[in-house]
Amino acid sequence: MTVRFGVIGTGAIGQEHIRRVEKRLSGGKVVAVTDISLDAARHCIEALELDAQLCDSEDEILQDSSVDAVIVTSWGPAHEGSVLKAIAAGKYVFVEKPLATTVDGCLRIVEAEARMGKRLVQVGFMRRYDASYVTLKREIESGRYGAPLMVRCVHRNACVDHRYTTDMAVLDTLIHELDVTRWLLGDDYTCVQVLYPKTTRHAPSGLQDPQIFNLVTQSGVVITAEVFVNCQYGYDIQCEVVCEDGVVSLASPQAVDIRHAGLHAQPVMQDWRFRFSDAYDAELQDFIDHVARGAEPSGPSSFDGYVATMVGQACVSAQGRDEWVTISVQKDLTIGFIRNNGNQRE
Amino acid sequence: MTVRFGVIGTGAIGQEHIRRVEKRLSGGKVVAVTDISLDAARHCIEALELDAQLCDSEDEILQDSSVDAVIVTSWGPAHEGSVLKAIAAGKYVFVEKPLATTVDGCLRIVEAEARMGKRLVQVGFMRRYDASYVTLKREIESGRYGAPLMVRCVHRNACVDHRYTTDMAVLDTLIHELDVTRWLLGDDYTCVQVLYPKTTRHAPSGLQDPQIFNLVTQSGVVITAEVFVNCQYGYDIQCEVVCEDGVVSLASPQAVDIRHAGLHAQPVMQDWRFRFSDAYDAELQDFIDHVARGAEPSGPSSFDGYVATMVGQACVSAQGRDEWVTISVQKDLTIGFIRNNGNQRE
Amino acid sequence: MTVRFGVIGTGAIGQEHIRRVEKRLSGGKVVAVTDISLDAARHCIEALELDAQLCDSEDEILQDSSVDAVIVTSWGPAHEGSVLKAIAAGKYVFVEKPLATTVDGCLRIVEAEARMGKRLVQVGFMRRYDASYVTLKREIESGRYGAPLMVRCVHRNACVDHRYTTDMAVLDTLIHELDVTRWLLGDDYTCVQVLYPKTTRHAPSGLQDPQIFNLVTQSGVVITAEVFVNCQYGYDIQCEVVCEDGVVSLASPQAVDIRHAGLHAQPVMQDWRFRFSDAYDAELQDFIDHVARGAEPSGPSSFDGYVATMVGQACVSAQGRDEWVTISVQKDLTIGFIRNNGNQRE
Amino acid sequence: MTVRFGVIGTGAIGQEHIRRVEKRLSGGKVVAVTDISLDAARHCIEALELDAQLCDSEDEILQDSSVDAVIVTSWGPAHEGSVLKAIAAGKYVFVEKPLATTVDGCLRIVEAEARMGKRLVQVGFMRRYDASYVTLKREIESGRYGAPLMVRCVHRNACVDHRYTTDMAVLDTLIHELDVTRWLLGDDYTCVQVLYPKTTRHAPSGLQDPQIFNLVTQSGVVITAEVFVNCQYGYDIQCEVVCEDGVVSLASPQAVDIRHAGLHAQPVMQDWRFRFSDAYDAELQDFIDHVARGAEPSGPSSFDGYVATMVGQACVSAQGRDEWVTISVQKDLTIGFIRNNGNQRE
Repeated sequence: MTVRFGVIGTGAIGQEHIRRVEKRLSGGKVVAVTDISLDAARHCIEALELDAQLCDSEDEILQDSSVDAVIVTSWGPAHEGSVLKAIAAGKYVFVEKPLATTVDGCLRIVEAEARMGKRLVQVGFMRRYDASYVTLKREIESGRYGAPLMVRCVHRNACVDHRYTTDMAVLDTLIHELDVTRWLLGDDYTCVQVLYPKTTRHAPSGLQDPQIFNLVTQSGVVITAEVFVNCQYGYDIQCEVVCEDGVVSLASPQAVDIRHAGLHAQPVMQDWRFRFSDAYDAELQDFIDHVARGAEPSGPSSFDGYVATMVGQACVSAQGRDEWVTISVQKDLTIGFIRNNGNQRE
Repeated sequence: MTVRFGVIGTGAIGQEHIRRVEKRLSGGKVVAVTDISLDAARHCIEALELDAQLCDSEDEILQDSSVDAVIVTSWGPAHEGSVLKAIAAGKYVFVEKPLATTVDGCLRIVEAEARMGKRLVQVGFMRRYDASYVTLKREIESGRYGAPLMVRCVHRNACVDHRYTTDMAVLDTLIHELDVTRWLLGDDYTCVQVLYPKTTRHAPSGLQDPQIFNLVTQSGVVITAEVFVNCQYGYDIQCEVVCEDGVVSLASPQAVDIRHAGLHAQPVMQDWRFRFSDAYDAELQDFIDHVARGAEPSGPSSFDGYVATMVGQACVSAQGRDEWVTISVQKDLTIGFIRNNGNQRE
Repeated sequence: MTVRFGVIGTGAIGQEHIRRVEKRLSGGKVVAVTDISLDAARHCIEALELDAQLCDSEDEILQDSSVDAVIVTSWGPAHEGSVLKAIAAGKYVFVEKPLATTVDGCLRIVEAEARMGKRLVQVGFMRRYDASYVTLKREIESGRYGAPLMVRCVHRNACVDHRYTTDMAVLDTLIHELDVTRWLLGDDYTCVQVLYPKTTRHAPSGLQDPQIFNLVTQSGVVITAEVFVNCQYGYDIQCEVVCEDGVVSLASPQAVDIRHAGLHAQPVMQDWRFRFSDAYDAELQDFIDHVARGAEPSGPSSFDGYVATMVGQACVSAQGRDEWVTISVQKDLTIGFIRNNGNQRE
Repeated sequence: MTVRFGVIGTGAIGQEHIRRVEKRLSGGKVVAVTDISLDAARHCIEALELDAQLCDSEDEILQDSSVDAVIVTSWGPAHEGSVLKAIAAGKYVFVEKPLATTVDGCLRIVEAEARMGKRLVQVGFMRRYDASYVTLKREIESGRYGAPLMVRCVHRNACVDHRYTTDMAVLDTLIHELDVTRWLLGDDYTCVQVLYPKTTRHAPSGLQDPQIFNLVTQSGVVITAEVFVNCQYGYDIQCEVVCEDGVVSLASPQAVDIRHAGLHAQPVMQDWRFRFSDAYDAELQDFIDHVARGAEPSGPSSFDGYVATMVGQACVSAQGRDEWVTISVQKDLTIGFIRNNGNQRE
């Protein structure tokens, strides 16, 4: 069965997902499209030469029985409404992060999905599909290195523009580390603290950059996560898991190795799009494969989306204080069939 | 337009390509299947749950107007016949290497295609689609490092079974280096010499392993290519291009980096399937994309297939003598529209 | 002029320094030796075939006009007394860390040296002489990478015995990072905090291992220093300095690179003796070279020794509390000729 | 006992060795100096502030009973005469490569030393003392990787001046690989072939650069040695030994690792002086240590010096022909006490 998609939101990331479904992945097809700007939606259909219907509203898409699943790529504050309506309509939903911009909004989605008695929602935390992270998780879980004790995350971007604010370092940037580290460890955060080193002269006025987040998990793992969004030299994602018997790290992807001008060098990627391009493909292909055979999606769940938003809020809260902020997951939410995929202990 | 494929040959590699078209790539569909063993073909349709017709012969497939293109994955000696018939039927052909097992067979294909006045054939030299090789070629062609002077290729497999013979080191193994190095350099070989180092105790009786092939190109580049198919430690493909102002090499793909048991280590891939998995996808997607929009394939051409077979024969000939063997490409073949894609100078 | 050494303390490290002077370095000679155990001192003279006098006490050595300089390698609590007496006798002193075990003791030494009107003392912080650290410092000071913002230190030992206690992680282990990082940055610490991750099952009972120390400097650099003394896999010293325009790190010393048994690997050193062997030689040769030509030593000064002990005490204090501990250097000490070598800003 | 040196030849390398003995190593002293230019010798004594006698001739040095050993650092053609006289005078000799510029000259030295009944001569092949090569040899000899089958050597210099000629690529450059590879393998060469790739535009007129030397050993190991003396990017020495069960290579020495300007890079050394600085110290310290205790030197012997010159001549001979040149060591020379240190099989 070909999965017929409706797309809600045709901005840059929406177009990326449409292109994926139409040009690179197997088993999906975009049949309906809408956007807050109908002109933008129309333009998208033409530019990508889609054989898809232009819909006036998300409601029209959600009522269309020829639509099997929706991709929600509108702006963040609109996610909750679209996802809730999609659940009510019984459609599968692939929603870009964040699941919702408020913790309460996330909870409403988790509860709505729980009432439906089946998983419908997958959140776009693509790093769980990155081959390096998958291998890293497999190595940790092999038991060969003993229990994890510390994790070091580095998230560096070459630069950001003047609209980037200190809390975006959490909500747009660190959020990926928050999700993927929890998934790697199968463990939940209990508290967070923020340290502000001296700020780079390259930071836009008012932005704290870099920032260091120290997080502790239930089992006592300490995570040190650096966010540095004006590092100048490129896009650099690092993750090192220090275990009792060894240390396992992500390797940096490299295509070539160059000896030139006095240096032995490997080019650093300049853009996250290249770094996680395959992971974006893999997450959506996985979603399609599950939906196509009538199975529930098995990627990041609405519960994972709730945790990310909730932990993100705690990190933002910690940015404003010189002390540790407590994080507590509402565990009773996980009753029933909504499993927390990343978290093997539960 | 969806490209409708007929598949001739449903062995391991045939099934791999079918799975690619059906499960991972966009824009293609397998509609007809045959094999020298009809049972095998039937079993393949069932195992992969294909919505495809079982055909008694390749002729049936080639006469079927609902088939746009064929994938030829039968055994080598059968390739020439299938490809010639496909050209005669005006079908696009994706043929696994070798294009044909004899130089004359290859020439017959090149000439048949030339008579048709358009490119129909793409040969499965997937390395040209590997991201590392593509980046390597781009770096060389940037001119930043000056002219290439020397190339060092390494092709190591963990082990081979007792049926592997000395000439297979050329025809099954080195053949990839022969094609991809010529494509990297845009240059043609003029002669080849073989050196036999001491043979490993792990080699099956009668097999020379390792072997070293020294090749020289028209512009004077010397290529040193090592083939070592019982290296024990893994699958390891290296390529270093020494230029006037710098050296550019393939980086080895690595997912993780491990500190454990007294070593700082990166796991070595054990299998070519993993190493070039993305390249296999990319070559077939590229073929589909071209055919889908009615364009000629732009991947390795029948002329490239001819050169590979011809140079391969010269290498085998050099295995039997203690001297240099001359290689000469029939350049007049390249008249007209059959361009030699890898070779910018022509 | 050959520098004639008296050695106070002939334990393991004392013998190492004697062997250095006698067998590997140029321009020095051991002429007198003592130890709390005269038997040990006698045995040392015999075992190393020294042409040196056995002295009953350090006083005898210090009154001997044929002794130009002393090496103090007794146990820590005895350092202060020996160094003060040596200063009073006008002898040059090479003293192993710590300069003294108490802050007051260190201050007494700094003041005594100041009263002598010339530098006599060098403290054995050998990392400042390690080629990697020297290059790292030169790179940072080149200005090419802008101002330092963050430093990450890792100090891992394969294992320690059951006598190793939590505060030894500071006084015996972290102390090297405390000195060398201050020297690298030319900056002083203002506060420190300790985080205790989950403890490894390999730690002796009662030992917190690993530990993370967060330090802040006057200019706002945040240093994250991990001490993990039962990491199992080897001796691993890392130091990464994140600057505004780039990141500079110590490279791990490697002799060979191995492809074997499915891994591409570099052996990890198992012992600090190998890692810093050349630096131990270089610090003592530098001391000899200065003394030989009648110049003041230019290595780590008594002031540096005071700062290390003082900051070390603050770190131990921070181990006992769940909050930041303030660090304040007595700057007025630096009057006159006792320069703080590591600290260009003063 | 302090070894008292006479130095014959005070050019750049002579001064380097004097500085080593006087300023960095233990147990030696320069007591007499001469040079073809007495002004140069006098200047050297003054510049290095030596407490040494200026001698009118090497004969004066060799007759001086206060001289224990001589360092021969005159120009190559003068080596034979000096070494033969030193042997006749019963002095230990440390002679820079080449031992002698002719094979016959080398043989006369080997025979003269044999007649003396003890080893007196050590040749300055310092790579055997480099820590990386020593580790590489130890790994190979561990047997862990099985028998060596192939070796790949790379010798690249950033650039050379216009006086550098094609045969100097053997006599000044490759000569180090010829000695150290034979020592690594404990095996002798049987034949050599030269390939000339396209020449770099950076080569002075008339110079073949790069060159590839293929050598075969008695046990069948094939060595591929690249010499490229205008590679532009730095000084780069590589050595990879491919064995039956694994591959062991020299690691490139690195002090720091830099992320900057879009690259993850390690600086490449620009000069052989830095690369083998420690090895130069170690070879001479080893010579001093042996002589000081009245033992025969154990470094590269006159027989090793003979083999290097003889194999070097064969390589030069191969440069002039398009075919393999046979190499045959006069094995009967190795009778008696003059052992070929590098060659465990004999």
